[in-house]
Amino acid sequence: MTIHETARALLARDNALILTHARPDGDTVGSAAALCLGLRALGKTAHVLKNPDMTARYLPYAAGCLWEGAVPDEAFLIAVDVAAPELLPEAFRPLESYVALVIDHHPTNSGYGRARCVRPDRASTGEIIFEILTEMGAPLTPEIALPLYLAVSTDTGCFRYSNTTARTHRVAAALLDTGIPAAEINREMFERKTRQRLRLESLVMGEMEFLDGGRVGLCRLTLEMLEKTGASEDDTDNISALPRRVEGVEIGVTIREMSGHICKISVRTSKSWEANRICARLGGGGHARAGGCQVEGDVAEARRRILKAIAEVTGAK
Amino acid sequence: MTIHETARALLARDNALILTHARPDGDTVGSAAALCLGLRALGKTAHVLKNPDMTARYLPYAAGCLWEGAVPDEAFLIAVDVAAPELLPEAFRPLESYVALVIDHHPTNSGYGRARCVRPDRASTGEIIFEILTEMGAPLTPEIALPLYLAVSTDTGCFRYSNTTARTHRVAAALLDTGIPAAEINREMFERKTRQRLRLESLVMGEMEFLDGGRVGLCRLTLEMLEKTGASEDDTDNISALPRRVEGVEIGVTIREMSGHICKISVRTSKSWEANRICARLGGGGHARAGGCQVEGDVAEARRRILKAIAEVTGAK
Repeated sequence: MTIHETARALLARDNALILTHARPDGDTVGSAAALCLGLRALGKTAHVLKNPDMTARYLPYAAGCLWEGAVPDEAFLIAVDVAAPELLPEAFRPLESYVALVIDHHPTNSGYGRARCVRPDRASTGEIIFEILTEMGAPLTPEIALPLYLAVSTDTGCFRYSNTTARTHRVAAALLDTGIPAAEINREMFERKTRQRLRLESLVMGEMEFLDGGRVGLCRLTLEMLEKTGASEDDTDNISALPRRVEGVEIGVTIREMSGHICKISVRTSKSWEANRICARLGGGGHARAGGCQVEGDVAEARRRILKAIAEVTGAK
Repeated sequence: MTIHETARALLARDNALILTHARPDGDTVGSAAALCLGLRALGKTAHVLKNPDMTARYLPYAAGCLWEGAVPDEAFLIAVDVAAPELLPEAFRPLESYVALVIDHHPTNSGYGRARCVRPDRASTGEIIFEILTEMGAPLTPEIALPLYLAVSTDTGCFRYSNTTARTHRVAAALLDTGIPAAEINREMFERKTRQRLRLESLVMGEMEFLDGGRVGLCRLTLEMLEKTGASEDDTDNISALPRRVEGVEIGVTIREMSGHICKISVRTSKSWEANRICARLGGGGHARAGGCQVEGDVAEARRRILKAIAEVTGAK
């Protein structure tokens, strides 16, 4: 559906209940909260279904929006920034077949849900929500601009990544016009580090491996490291950006040990390689510059398999 | 002078020779190059006087603009992003009394030069140059947008800092409309680290000191650290941002040893304190959130004096 059609569909319905994805980030939380508050400003009943995965980092942005009870029969279920039903939190899986509307920007969106507004050319789902709210005639209050800024800013690495467009900056300008404390959000999201995070970064960086003449940078985030540093889930956020920061690294790989036999792999690439193509070989997906997949096996097995996938896609040794 | 008056003054003159500040950063270099190219696009002769301090990091942005010979008698001297004549590189000092126009955004601008366009409400001098070029009717080509983006982006920490306004984002949108590879500039400026830089950061962070219940974070950047890591001048860029990243730190201090008896001190503050007020006690200045000063003495002496200045201004112990 177009932005216009999506706005009309939302205006025609009530009792919106908004779903976020597992391991929620700023885009899914900010988009959900802004859509909820925008619908309420238009006189509708709207909530964000409480996501048990939501951490203290993002929870404040959805405060006042959360629905904690059972899902009412008449709820109009909207999934935001959720590329596929498998990416819903476990607790939301039973709702999969009831999803009425999907609003998303992932090119890998699986096409689930009764209706979809998927715009892969937008840097964040927040950018799409901004357009939908504008189209619906919702007022842009600071309360709505705040979670939208969270969404737009976090999904672009604060306007650093290549997904940032002139439109992204124009949306940010409109949000800043409301007087929101953007610098505080940015400091919280991009700069502030706990001492645990510092120790974790130092460990991860210290064990970073460089392969294929330095073109591939690979780091590990193990359960032992988490235990040793006392790092929380929030402390691990965006650790996967580290390898690509080192000069010469075109493919940055981060292997996160989830349990003794399951690892999540994150891949970040320069424009020479497609992260989602590499991850697709292991059943994953994502964007051209950032992808992910999950592998059964320990860290050594995950390392072996992702290096093989990279070699197959890039022809690297 | 207003933007309009400055544009008229520039249109009335020719043979512009543009001066940048000592230890040039992205704003002074980007602003100088963009002004030079903008004037040329309007049919004028313009150059950026070669600044011997300019490092390989920024030099490419001024390529094609540099004037390496003697300063011609008829040159119209314009200083960009230079808050005071003392901030000109040593080699430019004899030119001080010939500066015809100063374009700057520092609130501490000393008021030198025959005419001035000083706008402290602008996040970067680049933002002012953008407005002046627009006012003059210069075309916004990718060649001009590229150094302007460098200026706007670096002085706002890529739109992260509190100096970023809605106007800053609108300028960025106009620059991105020209199709410049902004993400590459950002990666180069904000993300890419050499292995020397990694080692230096690790040393600086490792020796970071927390005072006054963690409200003050203080780190040292010594000549020995530079030697040990093999870090270059470029590798030390923005090291002074590190202390303020640690949770709870409201005043971040970085003491940089320049020689055995001269130290430069950089102060970054949260909104509760004014960095330039703290630095002014030691003869320095700067912005509310970021200031600097120079102290005669070794690192221990510099530490003693800046902690005293902080205590005086904040009432901290």
